[in-house]
Amino acid sequence: MVRDDAKIIRLLKTAGGQIEGIVKMVEDGKYCIDISNQIMAAQAILGRVNKEVLNAHLHSCVLSSIENGSADEKMDEITALLDKLIK
Amino acid sequence: MVRDDAKIIRLLKTAGGQIEGIVKMVEDGKYCIDISNQIMAAQAILGRVNKEVLNAHLHSCVLSSIENGSADEKMDEITALLDKLIK
Amino acid sequence: MVRDDAKIIRLLKTAGGQIEGIVKMVEDGKYCIDISNQIMAAQAILGRVNKEVLNAHLHSCVLSSIENGSADEKMDEITALLDKLIK
Amino acid sequence: MVRDDAKIIRLLKTAGGQIEGIVKMVEDGKYCIDISNQIMAAQAILGRVNKEVLNAHLHSCVLSSIENGSADEKMDEITALLDKLIK
Repeated sequence: MVRDDAKIIRLLKTAGGQIEGIVKMVEDGKYCIDISNQIMAAQAILGRVNKEVLNAHLHSCVLSSIENGSADEKMDEITALLDKLIK
Repeated sequence: MVRDDAKIIRLLKTAGGQIEGIVKMVEDGKYCIDISNQIMAAQAILGRVNKEVLNAHLHSCVLSSIENGSADEKMDEITALLDKLIK
Repeated sequence: MVRDDAKIIRLLKTAGGQIEGIVKMVEDGKYCIDISNQIMAAQAILGRVNKEVLNAHLHSCVLSSIENGSADEKMDEITALLDKLIK
Repeated sequence: MVRDDAKIIRLLKTAGGQIEGIVKMVEDGKYCIDISNQIMAAQAILGRVNKEVLNAHLHSCVLSSIENGSADEKMDEITALLDKLIK
């Protein structure tokens, strides 16, 4: 599985567009709760991008690293990642 | 406490700039783990914006709603918000 | 809305029972991913308890505090709470 | 790296003890915000257990699976896990 860069960039641009929309909402004095909901929507899109990137990473970089004998180092990277993600 | 729109917009533009940077990283074929870290950094900035917006909301809109006798409705909004935030 | 203590205690006991089950899984040498899933299920039940507690708090303690003129202090508490919840 | 079951069980028992303490707080009619904080503390301990379990998993089960040629399946499991963790 190769990283689907086109899809990732499309999602990133969607998130970027949402953030521009939020700037406009703030400038227009929109209601805080509506702004907050849009912020969480943008965070959720970034979460989807992150899943996409890491899914590709696990099935491509990590699997090929195994053939090179550097799997242990990759596991350290994933551990560091889980450390940030797990609450 | 009034919403600090200038600060909020500055943070949003920082997040927007980071997303542009991530698009470039993807186009340049950068390493997945580095991209993932930048995505989480952008999400964290949006989290800071969200805190800023909601802090102002609680200390301004909600307090003034209380004087108008519509506090119960505001509590429903905060409940809906916590529902999304609590894992 | 009054805090539904009976429901809250029932959920807490369910979470407590799950944790005992996880201890047994670890002792029996069960598979890490299965243990991890059970841990996240227990966290999710605690999340449900937290929502229940805070929902009651907003609609009861906070609304009554408003009548006593101490609403601003309650908003500080909710801000501190959001600070922990928002990522 | 082998799973440190003694440490994991000790942490689980701490979390279990905290939950019993929270039941008592609810029965004693303690303040909602204090209960909420204790719930989040118990969730955080479970998060530490989860990190411990998954760290061992990555450095032990996953690395040995690689030698057996079943690494791809393990990556699917980690992908499913990240799917739950990433927001």
